[in-house]
Amino acid sequence: MKACIVAVGTEMLTPLRVDTNSLFITERLNEIGIDVRLKLIVGDDVEELAELLRAALAWADVIVMTGGLGPTEDDITRAGVARVLELPLAVDESIVDRIRERFMRRGLTMPEINRRQAMVPRGATVLPNPNGTAPGLWMEQGGTAIVLLPGPPREMKPMFDIVVRERLAARTKGAGLFRRVLRITGRTESDVDAHAQPIYGKWTSQAVPITTTILAVLGQIELHVTAHAPCRAEADAALDRAVAELRDGLGDSLYSVDGRPLEAVVGDLLRSNGLTLAVAESCTGGLLASRLTDVPGSSDYLDRGVVCYSNRAKIESLGLAERLIEEHGAVSEPVARAMAEAIRAQANVDVGVGITGIAGPGGGTLQKPVGTVAIAVVGHGEARVRTFQFIGGRDQVKFQATQAALNMLRLMLKSQSGR
Amino acid sequence: MKACIVAVGTEMLTPLRVDTNSLFITERLNEIGIDVRLKLIVGDDVEELAELLRAALAWADVIVMTGGLGPTEDDITRAGVARVLELPLAVDESIVDRIRERFMRRGLTMPEINRRQAMVPRGATVLPNPNGTAPGLWMEQGGTAIVLLPGPPREMKPMFDIVVRERLAARTKGAGLFRRVLRITGRTESDVDAHAQPIYGKWTSQAVPITTTILAVLGQIELHVTAHAPCRAEADAALDRAVAELRDGLGDSLYSVDGRPLEAVVGDLLRSNGLTLAVAESCTGGLLASRLTDVPGSSDYLDRGVVCYSNRAKIESLGLAERLIEEHGAVSEPVARAMAEAIRAQANVDVGVGITGIAGPGGGTLQKPVGTVAIAVVGHGEARVRTFQFIGGRDQVKFQATQAALNMLRLMLKSQSGR
Repeated sequence: MKACIVAVGTEMLTPLRVDTNSLFITERLNEIGIDVRLKLIVGDDVEELAELLRAALAWADVIVMTGGLGPTEDDITRAGVARVLELPLAVDESIVDRIRERFMRRGLTMPEINRRQAMVPRGATVLPNPNGTAPGLWMEQGGTAIVLLPGPPREMKPMFDIVVRERLAARTKGAGLFRRVLRITGRTESDVDAHAQPIYGKWTSQAVPITTTILAVLGQIELHVTAHAPCRAEADAALDRAVAELRDGLGDSLYSVDGRPLEAVVGDLLRSNGLTLAVAESCTGGLLASRLTDVPGSSDYLDRGVVCYSNRAKIESLGLAERLIEEHGAVSEPVARAMAEAIRAQANVDVGVGITGIAGPGGGTLQKPVGTVAIAVVGHGEARVRTFQFIGGRDQVKFQATQAALNMLRLMLKSQSGR
Repeated sequence: MKACIVAVGTEMLTPLRVDTNSLFITERLNEIGIDVRLKLIVGDDVEELAELLRAALAWADVIVMTGGLGPTEDDITRAGVARVLELPLAVDESIVDRIRERFMRRGLTMPEINRRQAMVPRGATVLPNPNGTAPGLWMEQGGTAIVLLPGPPREMKPMFDIVVRERLAARTKGAGLFRRVLRITGRTESDVDAHAQPIYGKWTSQAVPITTTILAVLGQIELHVTAHAPCRAEADAALDRAVAELRDGLGDSLYSVDGRPLEAVVGDLLRSNGLTLAVAESCTGGLLASRLTDVPGSSDYLDRGVVCYSNRAKIESLGLAERLIEEHGAVSEPVARAMAEAIRAQANVDVGVGITGIAGPGGGTLQKPVGTVAIAVVGHGEARVRTFQFIGGRDQVKFQATQAALNMLRLMLKSQSGR
């Protein structure tokens, strides 16, 4: 089955906003075997909307529309659909009552303008909206289902899941698309593909076909592994096998097969091994600590962090020897290691991390250009120290440096815990 | 003039990717008086693309397409356009030479498949691509300009700015749209609108009409102020006046009229007053230091930060009295103030900031629910201490707390420097 998703709203035709509702809707449609073939983003113009709808009706089995169901003149979705389907619009008083009640519960009087939200094309099914005033609408014409959903995600999403999903699923017989996102770090895209392609290349023609897309994002490579299967259980079985094969092929560089970010993977390793952590950062400026503390419960293992942005801070808060910095430079492996060892001793924790580098745009030299970052991880009598050369702007260097530090930490924890 | 933007690529019809090229293109088109009326996102299917293009040709003055210009079978933009315009496609050997040269410069041989990128519909103008192999193409039919640009932003953007912009500008006579983004924090959306609406409400009918949109985003309110003017100079004059009026009406809560984020505004205030800063964070976990160090040159004023995630860390690294924490609780104004004072003294800087709170999801109590955050800013004999109650998930509480801390810091610096 083929779907068209329509986002209605002039704000999405400015340079300031994109439509993101369609990502959620696409995922849900894919799961019940509906393929999204077109996305339209249109403004608040009845004529234009009507014309595009007419074209989509000619080929789409499902048209899902979001937005334009508000109470103002700008909200033209109902009118556009009614025009194309040649149905009269009339106020449904039971909807007016529900909207009025909603206002009353908040001690407010319903403005007259909100009666517009109770306009329904004749024959349409009204979809209740527990989180807002605008109900959704379901219509059919010539075998095409037309679904109107409100724009705000907290109204649209539950309406889709509670009402729309089942109604659409009843119409489909095809296989659904079910995805896993695998995350890899510390390797290039072409290196990952060289190892992964011989594995995933065989899957396209099996009973439950699986397609794989490789994508380079900052500091990591993603593999999107998609199974075509009649139901989630069959997809899961096939995806489990696929993920196991990729895990064998990619080894240690594959850090997540369930969407967990690297900081959560590291956190779980620390917790399950009963270890505590402290970090000393220079060029990453607190981003490593901030990423670690994005994970709920991170206070179980993260004791503290210091951000030593000046050399004086490195000397005073970590007790680094001035001579060490003079001799090797602030951005050097000996300084990174001394930072890691100092914070570990100071905090009396199991593992310490030290990062020092040049995030740019200034501060680079011929020997140590912008993007040079030295990272040390110390713990349990082991010290791992490496120097990286990252490319990109300041934010990108900061992020890649924290990603590299988390990965060094992950690999050390894994090897020490023998897993 | 009316434009349609078409993004070609099946990956943008999955739940994992949105089209963002259109934001850049919309901004540029708006500036030269071209209105974007429709965005289409289509997959790698020649038939479907051709059908949609035919429909857009009927009304659009400009069709800008991105993506689908690669060398593989999936790259169908050239073929789709040639079909609709009924033009034969032929290989342009001068393009092949350029692509081959590009490969040679990297010591590589051009794969035969790349000849596809040299296919040109008869009569099309070839737009050079300094950053990639796929050239752009410019065609015209019945008064509509059709522009094909590569998908990767680093190829698409310079091609648009260097070649396409001027060609399109020559065709338009209309007024352009020029925007400013104003940022406000510490007030609610409705409060901002109550003060701003009486000001911007008058602007829609003036010689250079200005429209204003208000938008609530996490930790701040944005006002998008858009002038309709024949050129940038006229727009700037009108926008300067508009911004000055809004500045009077909104007062101190308006922190940026030029897109600068709050951390950059605070950084500029610190630098221009020759002040230095150190921060002590608990629940924000390093995010405040990380945001401050996102700004190039922040080492001029940020000396250091500490992240005291455990009570032990608060006592050991900041020298806080255990009794103070026992008496008031770790999340309390006296502790926030003691943290700010301790880091200021320890680092021997002008200003210290302390943040302590409950980011959630665990750790809340009846008296101090999740989202409770105490913040202190101390410097120059002045101490400002406040307790906030933020709503939202862990990330949102963290961000809002840093936003509130930066704003308290901004307001103190402003009042102390008498501006």
